[in-house]
Amino acid sequence: MSTASLPIDFADVAAAAERLRGVAHRTPVRTSRTVDERSGATVYFKCENFQRMGAFKFRGAYNALARLTPGQRRMGVIAYSSGNHAQAVALSARLLQVPSVIVMPHDAPASKLAATRAYQSGMPGSEVVLYDRYSEDREAIGRRIAEERGMTLIPPFDHADVMAGQGTAALELIEDVGALDALLVCVGGGGLVSGCAVAAFARSPGATVWGVEPEAGNDVQQSLARGEIVRIETPQTIADGAQTQACGRLTFPVMRALVKGVLTVSDAQLVGTMRFFAERMKMVVEPTGCLAAAALIEGVIDLRGQRVGVIVSGGNVDLPRYAQLLQS
Amino acid sequence: MSTASLPIDFADVAAAAERLRGVAHRTPVRTSRTVDERSGATVYFKCENFQRMGAFKFRGAYNALARLTPGQRRMGVIAYSSGNHAQAVALSARLLQVPSVIVMPHDAPASKLAATRAYQSGMPGSEVVLYDRYSEDREAIGRRIAEERGMTLIPPFDHADVMAGQGTAALELIEDVGALDALLVCVGGGGLVSGCAVAAFARSPGATVWGVEPEAGNDVQQSLARGEIVRIETPQTIADGAQTQACGRLTFPVMRALVKGVLTVSDAQLVGTMRFFAERMKMVVEPTGCLAAAALIEGVIDLRGQRVGVIVSGGNVDLPRYAQLLQS
Repeated sequence: MSTASLPIDFADVAAAAERLRGVAHRTPVRTSRTVDERSGATVYFKCENFQRMGAFKFRGAYNALARLTPGQRRMGVIAYSSGNHAQAVALSARLLQVPSVIVMPHDAPASKLAATRAYQSGMPGSEVVLYDRYSEDREAIGRRIAEERGMTLIPPFDHADVMAGQGTAALELIEDVGALDALLVCVGGGGLVSGCAVAAFARSPGATVWGVEPEAGNDVQQSLARGEIVRIETPQTIADGAQTQACGRLTFPVMRALVKGVLTVSDAQLVGTMRFFAERMKMVVEPTGCLAAAALIEGVIDLRGQRVGVIVSGGNVDLPRYAQLLQS
Repeated sequence: MSTASLPIDFADVAAAAERLRGVAHRTPVRTSRTVDERSGATVYFKCENFQRMGAFKFRGAYNALARLTPGQRRMGVIAYSSGNHAQAVALSARLLQVPSVIVMPHDAPASKLAATRAYQSGMPGSEVVLYDRYSEDREAIGRRIAEERGMTLIPPFDHADVMAGQGTAALELIEDVGALDALLVCVGGGGLVSGCAVAAFARSPGATVWGVEPEAGNDVQQSLARGEIVRIETPQTIADGAQTQACGRLTFPVMRALVKGVLTVSDAQLVGTMRFFAERMKMVVEPTGCLAAAALIEGVIDLRGQRVGVIVSGGNVDLPRYAQLLQS
């Protein structure tokens, strides 16, 4: 098999790693004797909850912004997101001194609004544009502003530079712990898993890559089964970073070529895993960040005897919400 | 100044580090741009909440048990503690195949009882002995069992091997990040701060070592001021690992010689710091583990322009309690 026909290849991931050097955190890899005992596997957690702005999304956003031409940088970038991608673009824009417009729902968590605005403060031409998620179309708003202001739209996953940037998480993991037998990665639009699969295919070719989706929204599982992109209703799940309706036109062929299959976990399994991380590993992990680990810890897949990498994708969850989930 | 007259010196810490190699985790050192910006310092957090059994206590307990003679190991060890020391001794005993008796209050958190018993399971001669903390004297119970069964008592802090073991936390920190200008360490009985001060004095002699106590129980601050050990009522504070009434006869002279001073922080400042760790650094830190960081983050001390080490001592807090503190 070759990756030559895919939208990104390993050279793109390696180039992204160079751009991110000294800018993104090289996040720690952690282990847990309890997880190893329960799963029978040797498990390495790549802790992207300790990444800058709290999630892997920084990798892709920064890589995409770093690739812009001087003219594009001058005009600025725009992103629409209620979650980690918004903050990732705002922070990357600040670091590269690029104006940014972030389109967010008017009922986004106050902490995310505040964090995004803090990254934009003192950056001329930067602002948060609020929209009503029940009556307005954020993509239309994004496109209109992009056209009016000549800004470059940075999509959350369906973009070669974003995908390549996300792949650096798996690249670092494999560099740090050596070849893997399996790699578990959460799946929303497929940006992270496709980048990671490309990295693993090049640097740990024996590794089987598994995606993990919320049970309520298994569009990628369905898409891989049918051989075409399946679009679903917005899934009702606590994994708010994986509430995508469909994967991307660039991520789909990569997943089809390099991802062995997609597993699903329930919200209850996510909460159990979130509690495990807090109680035993002393880490705050957001629900979406628990997806990949839940598949293993909750026994959805049996990887006994294998060396398994697990991407812990992020840790951004409002404290009151987090406290509520720990108690529920 | 020389450490020759003190109960431990650097050779003891270095020997402890050898014993702990491959047994204790070499815990990660983490940084936070937000903390650096707020404090004006360059701050390195030594994350002992990621240590085995969730706290630095494993270092001292394992070091002490590893130093026992074969005869002492055969007879077993005893410890009284409602907290991390109990689990540290139980786990160390298991690893070294030594019987252990842990004397715990009958109203200790169920999770701590369960964890201690789990470490003891399958170890002949091991058990948890419960006592009524309102009517019984745990020290008397401990002494009686030690005599009856010929077991060695492992005190939580006032023991040279325990102190030397705890000092390996600071030794690793300095090895990883280089010389420091200041080191902040929580103070209960003084085992951690005295071991760390000895390590810093040898490996980063320019570093000023500060202890941090809860406002409600500043016995060490008083003791250093008076030049003799001051005994106080059991302090009412959420920092349950620092509810000591007096420091030790071995820890006191070390603190007197090597600790510049003791700062205090309030419970409200501990909660603020606990929230900061959860929200910004995605780490679960127990109240006692927040002491040292709180002094810096809450502005109790100004260390602008300095390279500062902060020991995050542990992460063991019951989830319902933790959730409550995050919300309060």
